[in-house]
Amino acid sequence: MIVAMQDHATEENIQHVIERMVELGFNVHRTTGEIQTILAGVGTPSHFDVNEFKVLTGVQDAYRISSPYKLAGRGFRPEGTKITFPNGVVVGNEEVVVMAGPCSVESRAQILDSAKKVKAAGAKFLRGGAFKPRSSPYSFQGMGLEGLKLLREVADETGLLVITEVMEISQIEVMLPYIDCFQIGARNMQNFNLLRELGHVRKPCLLKRGIAATIEEVLLSAEYILSGGNYDLMLCERGVRTFETYTRNTMDISAIPVLKKLTHLPVLGDPSHGVGIRDLVPPMALAAVAAGADGLLMEMHPDPEKAMSDGAQSLYPEQLEKLMAQLRKLAPVVGRKIA
Amino acid sequence: MIVAMQDHATEENIQHVIERMVELGFNVHRTTGEIQTILAGVGTPSHFDVNEFKVLTGVQDAYRISSPYKLAGRGFRPEGTKITFPNGVVVGNEEVVVMAGPCSVESRAQILDSAKKVKAAGAKFLRGGAFKPRSSPYSFQGMGLEGLKLLREVADETGLLVITEVMEISQIEVMLPYIDCFQIGARNMQNFNLLRELGHVRKPCLLKRGIAATIEEVLLSAEYILSGGNYDLMLCERGVRTFETYTRNTMDISAIPVLKKLTHLPVLGDPSHGVGIRDLVPPMALAAVAAGADGLLMEMHPDPEKAMSDGAQSLYPEQLEKLMAQLRKLAPVVGRKIA
Amino acid sequence: MIVAMQDHATEENIQHVIERMVELGFNVHRTTGEIQTILAGVGTPSHFDVNEFKVLTGVQDAYRISSPYKLAGRGFRPEGTKITFPNGVVVGNEEVVVMAGPCSVESRAQILDSAKKVKAAGAKFLRGGAFKPRSSPYSFQGMGLEGLKLLREVADETGLLVITEVMEISQIEVMLPYIDCFQIGARNMQNFNLLRELGHVRKPCLLKRGIAATIEEVLLSAEYILSGGNYDLMLCERGVRTFETYTRNTMDISAIPVLKKLTHLPVLGDPSHGVGIRDLVPPMALAAVAAGADGLLMEMHPDPEKAMSDGAQSLYPEQLEKLMAQLRKLAPVVGRKIA
Amino acid sequence: MIVAMQDHATEENIQHVIERMVELGFNVHRTTGEIQTILAGVGTPSHFDVNEFKVLTGVQDAYRISSPYKLAGRGFRPEGTKITFPNGVVVGNEEVVVMAGPCSVESRAQILDSAKKVKAAGAKFLRGGAFKPRSSPYSFQGMGLEGLKLLREVADETGLLVITEVMEISQIEVMLPYIDCFQIGARNMQNFNLLRELGHVRKPCLLKRGIAATIEEVLLSAEYILSGGNYDLMLCERGVRTFETYTRNTMDISAIPVLKKLTHLPVLGDPSHGVGIRDLVPPMALAAVAAGADGLLMEMHPDPEKAMSDGAQSLYPEQLEKLMAQLRKLAPVVGRKIA
Repeated sequence: MIVAMQDHATEENIQHVIERMVELGFNVHRTTGEIQTILAGVGTPSHFDVNEFKVLTGVQDAYRISSPYKLAGRGFRPEGTKITFPNGVVVGNEEVVVMAGPCSVESRAQILDSAKKVKAAGAKFLRGGAFKPRSSPYSFQGMGLEGLKLLREVADETGLLVITEVMEISQIEVMLPYIDCFQIGARNMQNFNLLRELGHVRKPCLLKRGIAATIEEVLLSAEYILSGGNYDLMLCERGVRTFETYTRNTMDISAIPVLKKLTHLPVLGDPSHGVGIRDLVPPMALAAVAAGADGLLMEMHPDPEKAMSDGAQSLYPEQLEKLMAQLRKLAPVVGRKIA
Repeated sequence: MIVAMQDHATEENIQHVIERMVELGFNVHRTTGEIQTILAGVGTPSHFDVNEFKVLTGVQDAYRISSPYKLAGRGFRPEGTKITFPNGVVVGNEEVVVMAGPCSVESRAQILDSAKKVKAAGAKFLRGGAFKPRSSPYSFQGMGLEGLKLLREVADETGLLVITEVMEISQIEVMLPYIDCFQIGARNMQNFNLLRELGHVRKPCLLKRGIAATIEEVLLSAEYILSGGNYDLMLCERGVRTFETYTRNTMDISAIPVLKKLTHLPVLGDPSHGVGIRDLVPPMALAAVAAGADGLLMEMHPDPEKAMSDGAQSLYPEQLEKLMAQLRKLAPVVGRKIA
Repeated sequence: MIVAMQDHATEENIQHVIERMVELGFNVHRTTGEIQTILAGVGTPSHFDVNEFKVLTGVQDAYRISSPYKLAGRGFRPEGTKITFPNGVVVGNEEVVVMAGPCSVESRAQILDSAKKVKAAGAKFLRGGAFKPRSSPYSFQGMGLEGLKLLREVADETGLLVITEVMEISQIEVMLPYIDCFQIGARNMQNFNLLRELGHVRKPCLLKRGIAATIEEVLLSAEYILSGGNYDLMLCERGVRTFETYTRNTMDISAIPVLKKLTHLPVLGDPSHGVGIRDLVPPMALAAVAAGADGLLMEMHPDPEKAMSDGAQSLYPEQLEKLMAQLRKLAPVVGRKIA
Repeated sequence: MIVAMQDHATEENIQHVIERMVELGFNVHRTTGEIQTILAGVGTPSHFDVNEFKVLTGVQDAYRISSPYKLAGRGFRPEGTKITFPNGVVVGNEEVVVMAGPCSVESRAQILDSAKKVKAAGAKFLRGGAFKPRSSPYSFQGMGLEGLKLLREVADETGLLVITEVMEISQIEVMLPYIDCFQIGARNMQNFNLLRELGHVRKPCLLKRGIAATIEEVLLSAEYILSGGNYDLMLCERGVRTFETYTRNTMDISAIPVLKKLTHLPVLGDPSHGVGIRDLVPPMALAAVAAGADGLLMEMHPDPEKAMSDGAQSLYPEQLEKLMAQLRKLAPVVGRKIA
C-alpha cells in the first residue's frame, strides 16, 4: 500500500500514519520529495482497509498495491484451470463449449424437445431453470424439484450435461444428484453465504457477473468459492447495467479478455441476458468467441412466443443451428474450435 | 399494455399480436392511424412479459401500463405506513428517527461505548453488524450470535432499539429474540428467497436499495415482503453505483421524494454508505432530511481509526452530536421534527 | 403518442389532456377500460415534448411512439448508405474498411513512418490528430495546420485517405483542402452548432458516440448532419462510460448490430478508445467485426512508448499487421471481407 | 507518480521504467520489498500520461499523485472565490444566490412576466435561453439575438442580473453587451475551444457538470477557463446520467460538498435538470442548500403547460415563492442566508 501525504502534512501527521501502517504489519519506506512525502508499505498484511488511510489527517490519497485476491489470480495457476465433466467434456482447453436451453423448465414435453434440439445443434450442456429468480413475486417461480428431475432425465436421454441455477443454500443438497454444474445468478454474485457453501461442495460452478459488479468484485466472489476448496469454477459475463435502455443490459465483451488475463478460471459469455433481444444474440455470441470466450451460455426455446419467461431473447432452434455453424467457422480464426 | 405496430405491419402481423394479447387476458382496443396501428390492452392479466411483444413480427414497441407492484404502491395505503416499535417509537409519522452505531460489533466495550454515545446524541436505534457481508473472504466476517447478544444487552441498558443485518435464511430464527428490526443489505435486495422468508416473519424490516437497483426494482422487492403479510417495512436509499470514483457510491437523494410519492412505506437515508467519506456524511444527512426522509441510518464509532470495518466513513461521536443539533433545527423547516 | 391516465383521473383531467393533444396536431382515440383511460394520439406533429404530458394532473405516464428521427432511420434508405471516396474506396458495402494511425501527428518523421506501416498492414485510411481535445489545458494540444499538411502529404505519398478530428466551426474551412473525412469526437457529439455546420459541408464525416450517449441520441445527432444535406455520414462506437475502472471505457459491442438495424448509415468500431489498453485492442477489434462492423478505427504508433498521447492503447506496427491477418480470416465468416 | 512493479519483474524491466520516469523529469526513489519493487517519482513534470506506464513490461500498476489541476484547487485560493456583480450581488460569500426563469425566452410577454415573478420571489438572477441546445434538429432552437435583447430589457426593468447559455465561440462577442454571466451547458463542459475563449473573456461564467463527467474532469475544465485569466467562475451540479429512468438525471448532491472541499470556486445546484420532474424540484433544492450550495439555478415558467421546452420540470410561480420561503428558513440552519 502507498500513502501519499498532502503537501503541508506535519511530521506528527506522518508519524501517525507510519504507526498505523506498522501496526497492520507493513514495512514502511519513506520517500520525501521537495514538498510531498510518500510512504510505501511493503508486506502482505492479512486484513486492512485502504479507505481508513485516505481519511487520516494530512493524507492526500492511499492506494492498495497488492491484489486483494490470491487464489483466483492467474499467477496462482498460470497454465489455466480446466474442468473435466463426467462424460469427458472439458471446459478451459482450446475447445469452446456451448450450453443452451430454455430459460425455465416448463414441462416434460418442452424440456425434452429443447434437449433434442440443443443436442442436434452441437451444444454440450442443457440449461434450464428449475428455481427462477423473478423480480416480481407474481411471476412464474419455477418447477422446483420436479424440474430438476426432468432436466436430468432428458439430459441423460440426449447425452447432455445439466447446468441450472441454485438460489438458496437449502437447495444445494437437493440439487446435487441431478445436475453437473451449479449456476450462480448475477443477483447472487455477492450472496457470500451461498458462495461459501458452494466452496465446500465438490461439483463445478459457473459464477455470473453481477449487474453492476466490477472485475475485481467478480474475482473476490470467485475467491470465496476457491477458498472453500472448490476449484471447478467458471466465470460468465452476462451484461452490466448502464444508462442505455435499448438493450436489456450492456454486454461488456472486454470482460472476456480482461478476465482471461487476470485469472486462470475459464470465462464464458451469455449473450442472451447480455442483450436481451433475440436477433442481437447471434452477433454478440460471435463477438464473445472472437474476443476469446471459453464457452457460451444461451437461451433457446422450441417456441419462444410461448415461453413462460425470457421469450423475447430466446433463440429459435433454427437460429441456434445457424449460429453453431458460424461459430465452427469462426473459432479456428482465433485458435479455438467448437467442442 | 400498449403495442405499437410498425408502419408497414401486415394485417396478419396485427391479428397475431391481438391473439396473443387476448390469450393473456387483455381486452384489446385497436386504433388505426393513417399509417400506424396501436393496440391498447386493458385488464390486468396476472402474468405477462411485455418484452415478448416487442419482438413479435411487425411490432415497433410495447409498453406496460399498469404498475407491476400492487401492495407497495401508495394507492394501496394512501395514509402511509407507520411502524410502531415495542417502546413506543414510531417510524413513518412526522418524527424523523435516527439510527446510529458502528459498522460492526467488535467487542462488548466497543458496542457499549457506542450505545451510550448514540443514546446521548438522541438517536432511537442502535445499529451494528453481527453478520457482515464482506467482498473479500479474508475480511472480518462478524461476531455472529455473540454479537447479537451484546447488541441486545447494551441496547436494553441504554434504552435503544436494535437494527442489524440478516444475510441468510438460517439466521432469521437465531436473530428473532435479540433484535427489533431486520436490515436487508443492498447485496441482498434481490435475494428473493430471503425476502420471501422475511415476508412470513412478523418483525419489522428495513430494505436497502441495491447498488444498481431501479426504483421499480426496489418496490418489487418490497412487494415480495409485503405479499408474505409483513407490512412493517421501511426502505432505505444508500447510494448507487455510477462512474464517479471520488465517492464510494453516488447517493441518490431524489430517491427519497420519489419513493415517498410512489409508495406508502417509510423511506430512510444512509449517508454513510452513500458517500463513504466521513466529513461528507453530515451534509448528506442534512440533505436527506431536507428532501423528506423519514429517518437516517448512520455509522458512528467511538474510535473510527480503530474500526475493523468502514472506519473511513464512520462519524466521531462529537460529529454525531453536532449533526443531531443541526438536524433538530432543520427538521421543522420541512414540517418534521427529530424523534 | 400514448397517454395513460391514472385510475382515478377525472373527466376534467382527461378532457384537458385531449385538448393539449389536439392543439399539438394529434388525432386522439380514447380507450376506456374498467378503471383506466388510455388516449392514443396518431399523426406526426412537428414538435412536442412527451415529458410535458407526464406531469399533467391525472396522467400516469406518456409514451412517444414515433421515432424522433426520420432521415437517419433505416426506413428512409433501406438499402443502406454507401460512401465513396475519391480513390474508389467505399464504406458501407461488404468490405470492412480499416482506418489506423497515431493518436496525434507529432512530427514529419513520425507520421510518415506511421503512414507506411499503416499502408503495409492493409488499412485504407490514415488517422492522426492535428487538433487534439485534451482534458487538461497543460497537455499537448496538437500541431494544428502544420499537422494537417503533413497528413495530406504522407497520405498522398502512401496512397491512403485522411481522417482527422475537427473540434471547432472555424477549423472546417481550414481543414477542407487537406482531408477526406471529418471526425467528430465523442465530446462533440452534441455540439449542435458544429453538427449543423458539418451538415452544410459536402465532405464525409464520422460521428463518434458520446461517452454517455444513448443510441437514440446518436441518431438524433446524425439527424442534425443529415438534415443539412450531408449524407456521407458514418457512426462509430468507441466505448461508453460505466462504473468499471479496469478499462478506460466499456466498449458497447451491441451498439454495432443495434445501429445497423436502426439506421442506414455505416457503423464502425474504435476498440482503441473502447478499451484503452493495448493488448485488449485486438480481441475487441475481432469482436467488433464479428458483430457486424463496417469498419475499424484504431490507434497505431511506430513507438508507442514515445507517443505524446494515448501511447498506452496504441498498437505496435507488428500488432496491427498480425491483427489484419486475423481479420482477413474472420471477415468471411460473417459474410464480409477486409478492404 | 508511483509505479508498482509486478512480483516477478526483471531488473531490466525496472531499469527501463526508471529511465522513462527520469526522462519525464521525475526524481525516482526505489523501494524494494521481499517480492515487489515500488518506484516513487517525485517532482512535477509538466506533462505525462500515467497510462503509458501501466502498460510497460513488468508494471503492475501506476498512480498519479499530484492533482492534474493547479489553479482550480482550493490550495490556490484557500479563502474561496467571491464573484461580485455590477449591482453588488456577490456569489461565494455566506449568501445563497438564487437564479430562476424559464428554460427559453419565448416572447416579450413571457419573459417580462417571468422576470417580475422571479423578482417578486426574491431571486437575484433571471435565466432564460436565447440559444438552445436541442437534442433534435426539429425542436425550437431559441430566439437568438432578439432573445438576448429581451433578457437585458426585462432584467433592467426588474433589477435582475442576466445569465444565459453560450453555445458557440461566435456567440460570445454578440452576447457580451447583454448579459451578466455566461452559462456553459453540460454538453459543452468539454468543448475545450469554447472554454479557452471564455478564459480570455472578462465576464463571469457558470460551468455545468457534464452528464457523465467526473469531479476531476469538472475541475480540469475549470482549469481551462482559469488558465486564460478569467477567475470569475462558478460550477454547477445538474444531475448525472445513471441507469435510473424514473428521473431525467440523478442529481449528485454529494458533488456540492465534494467540490466545496476540492476547489475555491463557488458551487451551485440545478435541481430542475437534476430531477426533471416539477414536484421533485423543491425537495432537491432544499437538499442542495442543506448540503452547502452557494446558489441555485432553477426553471420557472408563468405557465409551464405552455412552455416551448422543459415545461415538465418548470416550477409554477407559486411553487417558486413557497420554495423561497422555505429556503429562507433553512439557510440559517447551515450558517447561510438567502441573498
